[in-house]
Amino acid sequence: MGKVFLVGAGPGDPELLTRKAARLLAEATIVLHDALVSREVLALISPRAECIDVGKRFGQKLLTQDEINSLLISYAASHEIIVRLKGGDPLIFGRAAEEMLALREAAIDFEVVPGITAALAAAASARISLTYRRVAFQLLFTTFSRAASSSPMDWSAVTTTTTLVIYMPGPDYPELSRWLQDSDLPADLPCAVISKATHPDQQLFRTTIAALAEAAKLPAPALLLVGRVAAQPSDTDFTAASGLLHDSLPGNLRNVLSRRSSVL
Amino acid sequence: MGKVFLVGAGPGDPELLTRKAARLLAEATIVLHDALVSREVLALISPRAECIDVGKRFGQKLLTQDEINSLLISYAASHEIIVRLKGGDPLIFGRAAEEMLALREAAIDFEVVPGITAALAAAASARISLTYRRVAFQLLFTTFSRAASSSPMDWSAVTTTTTLVIYMPGPDYPELSRWLQDSDLPADLPCAVISKATHPDQQLFRTTIAALAEAAKLPAPALLLVGRVAAQPSDTDFTAASGLLHDSLPGNLRNVLSRRSSVL
Repeated sequence: MGKVFLVGAGPGDPELLTRKAARLLAEATIVLHDALVSREVLALISPRAECIDVGKRFGQKLLTQDEINSLLISYAASHEIIVRLKGGDPLIFGRAAEEMLALREAAIDFEVVPGITAALAAAASARISLTYRRVAFQLLFTTFSRAASSSPMDWSAVTTTTTLVIYMPGPDYPELSRWLQDSDLPADLPCAVISKATHPDQQLFRTTIAALAEAAKLPAPALLLVGRVAAQPSDTDFTAASGLLHDSLPGNLRNVLSRRSSVL
Repeated sequence: MGKVFLVGAGPGDPELLTRKAARLLAEATIVLHDALVSREVLALISPRAECIDVGKRFGQKLLTQDEINSLLISYAASHEIIVRLKGGDPLIFGRAAEEMLALREAAIDFEVVPGITAALAAAASARISLTYRRVAFQLLFTTFSRAASSSPMDWSAVTTTTTLVIYMPGPDYPELSRWLQDSDLPADLPCAVISKATHPDQQLFRTTIAALAEAAKLPAPALLLVGRVAAQPSDTDFTAASGLLHDSLPGNLRNVLSRRSSVL
């Protein structure tokens, strides 16, 4: 009986795989991966291993979650190391819960290997700190979909000091902008779209949640950071919105910001 | 002029470093690290590199953030690759914002290398999915401190379908339990303390936020997961609380759960 490893593939850059994930890709005799996993990461799989794209198989047809669960269970009978490779981290928006339940039910040994989730990769690429003393001491990860857009959240209690990370924001920025404002967020709250984080052609665009409606679409996969941290100065864009930061910064940082502004 | 890398050291297990972080530790000529970074990770630093513990120096004295910023800036003049190594991920509760501001001000080139943050490591160790269709589609990272305990949050709007991750919960479980209940969370909400995630002596304890007050303390560093996902069955603890999951699970998973319960 083999062991199944639910492994996070990270954001795409193979250098951002964990050492353990890289070792398992070299050792596994079978790898079942999502469609989102990058070619550069897949290149680390042993050439002797069987490699199955469970996100897109038989052309465009998707396997159901039950079919993926069944595959994992059946391969555990014939393989020693089975890797289930998921984009980002397996335990964040990755459907790992369903696979873990099925593996437990079948009494198959398994282990979870964490990965760099999109929020961390996007923030690192954009050099935006997700938390920041006095400005953002909480962090909320959520997703956006048509279903979400029809039921706005009441985020008024959490968002004054919270960075919001929207996974899979989709291409409909006007709807996204409306949903965020309907969710009790102020129209002038800064946000940043980060497209293809850690890829060579990554892009960063800073705006506000109101102005997001008019913004040019960036290519998927993308992620939306919402909150005052998104207005921080960066090498690509030092906007007037950084003024928003001033009122709650400690004195010495306020001075640093002012000095930097005057140098520019 | 050198380049500063703000690098995430992950949770402690050196196998959970990214490949990029490991490479930078081998290449850097100077590494400034937090006290929390594990010995196993520090062992990957080149023996030729200068290694400075900025979390605890001159015995117990802590360097201030301004002093750390100054060190980074001055070393950039004399070293090519300067690594600033932080536990977990640099951009989550890691004070990277202050260091990035100082580096920008000094016009020093820098890059952020993400790391496995404690929430991901703890969830992987405990084999608890942080998100779960219909049970938890949001994820909130926050911290607990004496200041937090005196100002309860209003989480009623977000928490019915949100997993809450409390970083640095501290040893005062009765106060923590009171704060969570004062923050409008139901007393019977499941939670899990995960101590020393990814270390050989890691521990997992499942309870509810009310019963947490009476729980035996687990050693730091620890993390508290709060939410219905914490009641999921695991190999270490299949509690009655998993019944909480049943009412919102899809039919086939409900059957899987029932079958498993009867097998045990």
